[in-house]
Amino acid sequence: MTLHVKNVWLHDQGTVDMHLVEGKIQAIGPNLPSLPQATVLDVHHKAAVSGLVNGHTHAAMTLFRGYGDDMHLMPWLETRIWPAEAKLTQEDVYWGTRLACLEMIRSGTVAFEDMYWHFHGMAQAVEDSGLRAGVGAVMIDVAGEKQARACQEQAVQFLEESSRYSSRVQFTLTPHAIYTVSPKSLSWSATFSEQHQLPIHIHLSETAFEVSECIRQHGVRPAVHLDQQGLLTPRTILAHGVYLDDDELDLIAERGATIVSNPVSNLKLAVGGIFPYRRAAQRGIPIALGTDGAASNNNLDMFQDAKIFALIQKHADNDPTSLTAAETWRVATGVAAPLIGQGSGLLKEGENADILFLRRDLPEMTPHHDFISNVVYSATGAVVDTVIVDGKVLMENRHIEGEEEILQEASARAKVLCAT
Amino acid sequence: MTLHVKNVWLHDQGTVDMHLVEGKIQAIGPNLPSLPQATVLDVHHKAAVSGLVNGHTHAAMTLFRGYGDDMHLMPWLETRIWPAEAKLTQEDVYWGTRLACLEMIRSGTVAFEDMYWHFHGMAQAVEDSGLRAGVGAVMIDVAGEKQARACQEQAVQFLEESSRYSSRVQFTLTPHAIYTVSPKSLSWSATFSEQHQLPIHIHLSETAFEVSECIRQHGVRPAVHLDQQGLLTPRTILAHGVYLDDDELDLIAERGATIVSNPVSNLKLAVGGIFPYRRAAQRGIPIALGTDGAASNNNLDMFQDAKIFALIQKHADNDPTSLTAAETWRVATGVAAPLIGQGSGLLKEGENADILFLRRDLPEMTPHHDFISNVVYSATGAVVDTVIVDGKVLMENRHIEGEEEILQEASARAKVLCAT
Repeated sequence: MTLHVKNVWLHDQGTVDMHLVEGKIQAIGPNLPSLPQATVLDVHHKAAVSGLVNGHTHAAMTLFRGYGDDMHLMPWLETRIWPAEAKLTQEDVYWGTRLACLEMIRSGTVAFEDMYWHFHGMAQAVEDSGLRAGVGAVMIDVAGEKQARACQEQAVQFLEESSRYSSRVQFTLTPHAIYTVSPKSLSWSATFSEQHQLPIHIHLSETAFEVSECIRQHGVRPAVHLDQQGLLTPRTILAHGVYLDDDELDLIAERGATIVSNPVSNLKLAVGGIFPYRRAAQRGIPIALGTDGAASNNNLDMFQDAKIFALIQKHADNDPTSLTAAETWRVATGVAAPLIGQGSGLLKEGENADILFLRRDLPEMTPHHDFISNVVYSATGAVVDTVIVDGKVLMENRHIEGEEEILQEASARAKVLCAT
Repeated sequence: MTLHVKNVWLHDQGTVDMHLVEGKIQAIGPNLPSLPQATVLDVHHKAAVSGLVNGHTHAAMTLFRGYGDDMHLMPWLETRIWPAEAKLTQEDVYWGTRLACLEMIRSGTVAFEDMYWHFHGMAQAVEDSGLRAGVGAVMIDVAGEKQARACQEQAVQFLEESSRYSSRVQFTLTPHAIYTVSPKSLSWSATFSEQHQLPIHIHLSETAFEVSECIRQHGVRPAVHLDQQGLLTPRTILAHGVYLDDDELDLIAERGATIVSNPVSNLKLAVGGIFPYRRAAQRGIPIALGTDGAASNNNLDMFQDAKIFALIQKHADNDPTSLTAAETWRVATGVAAPLIGQGSGLLKEGENADILFLRRDLPEMTPHHDFISNVVYSATGAVVDTVIVDGKVLMENRHIEGEEEILQEASARAKVLCAT
């Protein structure tokens, strides 16, 4: 598909046109010539920005949005989430993921890293939504060898079967965490990832308890333990990283792994700490931003999470100049951690045509002293008017194809899953 | 004006009708009879909730949204805000306040406490917008006796002149803070407030520096100093209260003053502390929520600030069960501090007809496990469809009369004010 986008406003260039060809930005400039067979899209001076990249979520958990907030972790898992998840089917996961994708498109997310149950439910939903995602089925082997082997066989099978999806769906290894996956299975994942050059997405160092338990069981801190199993690689995405000390950050930097901070989830679950952004950034560690699942956020609007990320880092550093709007925006759009978005996060020729068009005629975007400041500190996903991913229009004037069916299906399934 | 609102959804009652007569809720119930001469408004099963109450803002500072973020306080004031404010006219303040009111209506705020320059610019804007507000002109007497007298004369004059506005505009005394107003002027404000039963709105205990300076200069902590001037009363609204110790909280509770927490502003300016909500609430202190001005937030969407308020309190308490969604909602709608909203914040017969109608058919409001949880943790102001204040429709289907003119005027004036 070829798109000729007219009257695009770029905050550093003013009004330009764009040619989007075969999923890439082919040209940006004033008054570009007409393209043969191009569809013309006039965006009427809306602002083009890169799409947001959600570095860590459990998309289908939209089904459990608001189902057990303000609870302690264990009662929440035991009385709410686990009983509901036990009933989940592939179709439930499909519709829950569709609901998540719908919400993400409406709030300007173009790519995300997902980890949940029922691989094909997730993958098919990503395929149908038009978004990009790293998709992995949770690997957990607390039940022992047999469960470990089943997970490994599943990984092999899903990797093979993932070829049925487009390149927007990236098969990803998702061992859950060091406290739910044995060293042996972690090592297996490292080897399998190396062999097929697969991304690895894992929770790490989310709570102080995880750290103390790791030291008690393995004699080392979580990042060191992970490294000992070979799992700290340039392909590794570490979700949370709240309790990383300087030695662990040095090690992560050396190995080239990415850390995804999830500030809203961390605050809502009261994990007690704040991701050490400044110490990680100083070491050159690629850093991304995530919402975590809707059950612990409770929305997937990266605009809001970007603001909260900047706020909490300023607070932690006791410095209003920490984590500026521009720096926050680079993290939120994946520029600071290119692996995550499967693209550069940059809006320039040759890059992926993953673009948002934002309204500037809204009160929260007025006046116009500093566009990026308005985007990071004042906007929400509601300013997103039009979304293009892989060169295709997924939302135009806030209209998305099939929205009503998704809301109805997800709603009905959520009700059944959570009925007691 | 008489309104018959049909097909209202109440989360604890299901579908009802409402009769709104002369600014009050006259009746709520299923299938209410037709009212003579009533305008019929069918809200098609949208959810009715009380309007939000913004307990502390400087509305016209929307003109400076994004003008100098990520800076230290003194350079920001000296190079940006003070030079721009020096040029402010009454008309600028009028249009800046109109912009703020526009943004507040769109995000569901029905009443606010305002403190800024040019009283009539603010008051006329509130009058024209249809919102309720406590409005006061900043009192500062750092320049000495002459400035103090001028402020007092102004207060007397504005009180008298405020009779030209409707009851939605509440004249309020707004001495700026203990570090910018002399004890003598604070005492004068206390007497004047007592005499005319006027609300008092003042910044208190926002930074650790304010506390140490107060102790150095006056030998006591800020709340005690304020009490010594007679300014801790049931009519007093204290903005911030970040650094209050237990003795000060006891004193504030005894005097019946209200505290307004401004979590986003406090985090963004990195004041270093977090408002001790739990300790204040345990003492029965009325507590409200504020956005502070758009220059330090940078929007006025109370839905977002309510979420961040809950998040940061859970974090501070290291407890995910702290400040539940329901409790947060009571604070954000003024139920926990009735003074602020000039109403009870309750949606029931006999109360002010200040009502929001929220969309429930949006991804962030789906599924429907817990309506209040969705409202507090997932919604933003963008879910507000229709707003009624004092029985009049200020926004319907997100349309507000005169929106374009406000955006244009505010935008043009902001540009001139901040031109260097």
